[in-house]
Amino acid sequence: MTRAFTDMAAMRTVLWLLLAAASEGGSAPNFIILLMDDMGWGDLAVFGEPSRETPNLDRMAAEGMLFPNFYTASPLCSPSRAALLTGRLPIRNGFYTTNAHARNGYTPQEIVGGIPASEILLPELLKKTGYSSKIIGKWHLGHQDQFHPLRHGFDEWFGSPNCHFGPYNNKDRPNIPVYNNSEMVGRYYEEFQINKKTGESNLTQIYLQEGIDFIRRQVAQRKSFFLYWAVDATHAPVYASKEYLGTSKRGLYGDAVREIDDSIGKILRELHAQAIANNTLVFFTSDNGAALISAPNQGGSNSPFLCGKETTFEGGMREPAIAWWPGHIPAGQVSYQLGTVMDLFTTSLNLAGLQPPNDRQLDGIDLSPVLLQNKVINRPVFYYRGNELMAVRLGEYKAHYWTWSNSWEELQQGINFCPGQNVTDVTTHDQRNYSVQPLLFHLGRDPGEKYRIRFSHEEYEEEMRKFSTVVQNHRASLVPGEPQLNICDRAVMNWSPLGCEKLGKCLNIPKSKPWKCNWPH
Amino acid sequence: MTRAFTDMAAMRTVLWLLLAAASEGGSAPNFIILLMDDMGWGDLAVFGEPSRETPNLDRMAAEGMLFPNFYTASPLCSPSRAALLTGRLPIRNGFYTTNAHARNGYTPQEIVGGIPASEILLPELLKKTGYSSKIIGKWHLGHQDQFHPLRHGFDEWFGSPNCHFGPYNNKDRPNIPVYNNSEMVGRYYEEFQINKKTGESNLTQIYLQEGIDFIRRQVAQRKSFFLYWAVDATHAPVYASKEYLGTSKRGLYGDAVREIDDSIGKILRELHAQAIANNTLVFFTSDNGAALISAPNQGGSNSPFLCGKETTFEGGMREPAIAWWPGHIPAGQVSYQLGTVMDLFTTSLNLAGLQPPNDRQLDGIDLSPVLLQNKVINRPVFYYRGNELMAVRLGEYKAHYWTWSNSWEELQQGINFCPGQNVTDVTTHDQRNYSVQPLLFHLGRDPGEKYRIRFSHEEYEEEMRKFSTVVQNHRASLVPGEPQLNICDRAVMNWSPLGCEKLGKCLNIPKSKPWKCNWPH
Repeated sequence: MTRAFTDMAAMRTVLWLLLAAASEGGSAPNFIILLMDDMGWGDLAVFGEPSRETPNLDRMAAEGMLFPNFYTASPLCSPSRAALLTGRLPIRNGFYTTNAHARNGYTPQEIVGGIPASEILLPELLKKTGYSSKIIGKWHLGHQDQFHPLRHGFDEWFGSPNCHFGPYNNKDRPNIPVYNNSEMVGRYYEEFQINKKTGESNLTQIYLQEGIDFIRRQVAQRKSFFLYWAVDATHAPVYASKEYLGTSKRGLYGDAVREIDDSIGKILRELHAQAIANNTLVFFTSDNGAALISAPNQGGSNSPFLCGKETTFEGGMREPAIAWWPGHIPAGQVSYQLGTVMDLFTTSLNLAGLQPPNDRQLDGIDLSPVLLQNKVINRPVFYYRGNELMAVRLGEYKAHYWTWSNSWEELQQGINFCPGQNVTDVTTHDQRNYSVQPLLFHLGRDPGEKYRIRFSHEEYEEEMRKFSTVVQNHRASLVPGEPQLNICDRAVMNWSPLGCEKLGKCLNIPKSKPWKCNWPH
Repeated sequence: MTRAFTDMAAMRTVLWLLLAAASEGGSAPNFIILLMDDMGWGDLAVFGEPSRETPNLDRMAAEGMLFPNFYTASPLCSPSRAALLTGRLPIRNGFYTTNAHARNGYTPQEIVGGIPASEILLPELLKKTGYSSKIIGKWHLGHQDQFHPLRHGFDEWFGSPNCHFGPYNNKDRPNIPVYNNSEMVGRYYEEFQINKKTGESNLTQIYLQEGIDFIRRQVAQRKSFFLYWAVDATHAPVYASKEYLGTSKRGLYGDAVREIDDSIGKILRELHAQAIANNTLVFFTSDNGAALISAPNQGGSNSPFLCGKETTFEGGMREPAIAWWPGHIPAGQVSYQLGTVMDLFTTSLNLAGLQPPNDRQLDGIDLSPVLLQNKVINRPVFYYRGNELMAVRLGEYKAHYWTWSNSWEELQQGINFCPGQNVTDVTTHDQRNYSVQPLLFHLGRDPGEKYRIRFSHEEYEEEMRKFSTVVQNHRASLVPGEPQLNICDRAVMNWSPLGCEKLGKCLNIPKSKPWKCNWPH
C-alpha cells in the first residue's frame, strides 16, 4: 500500500465521521416550548425563591442551560405570545394599540383584531418540513374564527382563545370557550370548572395529559413535532388540582407552581421513556413578569427586579428561562446571552433546517451557537409598551427613554404595579420622556434599577454613545404593523363559537357597535 | 448451641455495632465558621444572584445543606458576632445600648465596653476537650486588651479588633491595628494597604493563607480545631486583590465576593487534601443583611427581602447559610429549619461532646438533628434592635411589634436603609409601637413583607394567639445583661495597642473624657 493511498483512506474515514456528525447535528429535533403565564423570574428555586418548591425545573436547569438574562417582547400576554410565534416585535406584527400613547393592549373577548393573515407563524414554517404542531392552553392571538391556531399552522389545539376570567352570566358577557381543535367542547365555569373560592381546577392535569398523548402519538407515527404548552394556572384567577391545594408554603400561587413543576417533570420523563429526549429541545420560559398586582395570593415573584407585569422595568420583562436538550446542550451551563422569546422562532427554524422568511424584519436571532457552544452574541433588547420604545438593554447597561408605572388615577384606585417599591424619577406615575437624556443603569451592579448612573459621569457619556447608534438604526428601519388592538365590539365576543350548535351552547349575538378600546395602562 | 445463646451473641454483635456507630458519630469534628461581613442573602447564585458568580459556594451547597431560613441575632455586626460566640442574644450578653430606644450599637474604637468577662465563648468551652481555636479577620467584640480574643478562649488571632475604616491621621484618630495573636503587627492603610480609590487590597489572600496554615498545623499535630474565618472584604470600604479587580459583572462588590468564593473553594479543597473533610463541619453565613446604604458599588443584595442592614426587616437579618460535612450531612439537602447564628454555639458544643453552660439562658439550639437527619425543630426567632424586641418569627409568620427604618432627619441627609422600597406603615421613619396589635406577615406567601394580614382576618387572630404565649414567656424570663455599648471615650482608641513599642508605632493617649455614645439609628 502506498503512503498516499493510506492517507486518502484515513481522510475518507475522517470525512465520513464528520458527515455523520453533521447529519446527526442537523437532524431536525422536536421542539417543546413550555410557556408560563405571569410566572416571574423569582418563582423558581434555581432563581432564588426562598421556599424552594420547583425540584423538577431545578433539575431541568442542572441538566441543561440556565438563562438569567432572558426577556419577553412585551410586559403583557398577547403581544408577548404573538412575538414568540412570529419572531417579531409586537410593533411589527400588529399586537399593539395606537389609541393612546405607550399603552399595553391584549385580546379580551371584545377585541376585534388578532394575528394578521400576513404574519407567518413558527408552526406554518415547520409544517413545510413535516412537523406536526399542537398548542395546549392559552392562545391569546385573537378569538374570532380567522385567528384560530388551526388557521395559522397548528394541527391541533386543546385550550382557550382568551384568559380564564369569569364566571360570566352569558347575557352581558359569555363564558370563555375551551376548544378541542376547531370546535368548542365547553366553557370555563361550565364544563371546565374553576372554583374561585377554593382555587380548585383540574385544568393543568388535562393540559398535562393532552401533552403526553400528543407526544406519544407523534412518536408512534415517527413524526417530528412542535408542542407549544401554554398553561395558565399561575395567571389570576390562580388554580391547582385538589391534590396540590394547600401543599405549598407559598399559598395558592405556590400550589399552582408545584403542580406545573411536577407536570414538567412528567413531560421530561416521558421524553426519556419514549427515547426521544436526545432529539427534543425543550425550552421553559414565561410570557411576562409576575403580576404583583395580584400578589401575594394570586401573583408570583420577580425577586430582585423592579416592579412587575405591565411595566418595562426588569420585573415586567425579565423571565425565568431554561433550555434542555440532553446530548446536545451540556449539563449545568449558565448562559449570559441576552435572549428573547422571539429567538425561539429563529432558533427552531434554524435547527429544523429551515430558512426564516426574508421578506420582513425579524427580531429573533438564532441561539443555536449559544445552546450548543455557549457562545455569547452581542445584541440589543428592546422594551416596548404599546407603540413606544420605553427602554433598551445593551450588554450590562439599560437605558430608559420613557418611564411609567401607571397613572396617579389608577394608583389612587389601588392599582399598583410596583407594590412596596418606589424609585424616584423612575417608577413614575406620569409618562416621563427621557429621550433627550435617557436614564442609565448598570444591571450587573444594580439589577433592581435603583441607582442610576449620573449624567455627569464619564461612564454615562461613553455608554450612551453606543445606545444612540443602536436606537437610531432601530427607529430608522422600523415599519410598524397595522395595529390590531384598537377596536372593540361586543358583537365579536364568544357568543357562538365554532361547534356551539353540537353542544347546544350558542348564544345570541348582539348588534355590532364598535368602539375604540380603552387601555388605561 | 442453645437458641438463647445464639440470640445473646447476636444481640452482643448488634450492641457492639451500635456502640461503634455511636462513638463514630460522637467523635468530635473540627469546626470552621466562615462568617461574612455585610454579605446579603441574595449575593450567592444558589440564592438567585443574577450574575451567578459563586461557583464554590454553590458547590458547597450542592454537597451539603442549604438554609433559606437562617438568621443573625442583630442587624449589626458586633452584637451579631457576640451572639454567635456566646449562643446568647445581645440583650443578654450586653452587646446593646440603653442610651436611646431601639438603637443599633457596635464597637467603634471610641467604645469603652466589650465582651464581659462573665460571658463564656465557644472556644473557651472547646478548649476543655482539647480544641485549638483561631480567629482570622474581624473580632469586633471590643478592642481594649481585656476584650481580645486570646483572653476569651482563642489560641490564635490574625486580624483586627475593629472595622477597616480609615485612613486616619493618627492625631484625631489612630489607624486600626492588625494583630498577630496578642501583639499588633501593623495598622490598616500603613502596613496593611487598602486602596480606597481602586479598591485594591490583598487582605483576603492573607486571611486565606492564615487559614490554610492553621489547618495544616492542626492536622500535623493531630489536634481538633475551631477556625473562625471572619473576613471583611464585603464590608465598605470593599476591597479585592489585584487579580480579582474588574473580574465581576457586579463591580467591586462582586470582585470581593468572587475572591471570597474562590478562597472558600480552596479551604474546602484543603480539607479534602488533608483527608479531614469527613471530620470537619463547615458552616457559611453572614453577620447581617447587605448594607443597601453602600450599594451598588460597596453593598450587596438581599434579593426579595425588605430593606437591609440596620433594620429588623428580613433584608436586615435573614442570612445566606450553608452547612457542609461530607459523609455526615447528605448532599443536596435544603433545610426549612429556622436557624440562628447562636445555634452554631450550641450545635458545636453538642457535636464536640460538651455540655452547654447551665447557669445562664441560652438562645442557640442544637441543630445536629437538623444537620444529620433533616429534622425541623419548632422554635421562634427574635428580632432585636438594641434594647427592643422589634419582631418575632414563628413558623411562616412574622409579627412586627415595633417598626422603624431610620429617622426622617437621617433620611433627609440621604441615609436610607430601604432604597427604592417603601411599604406604608411598615418601613416607617418614626419608631412605631404596634405591641398592642402587631403587624402580621406570612413570609412564605410574602417574603418581601409587603402585604400584611388584615387585623379582621381569622388567620390574624389564630396566629397572634400563638405569638402572645411565646412573647410573654420570652419577656418574663429575660434578664438583660449590663449594656456594653453606652460609653465612649477617645482615650480608649487604638493609640498604643499591645506590641506597638516593638514597631515604634505607639501614639500618645489623650486624657480620658467619657461621653454617652450617640447611636443615631
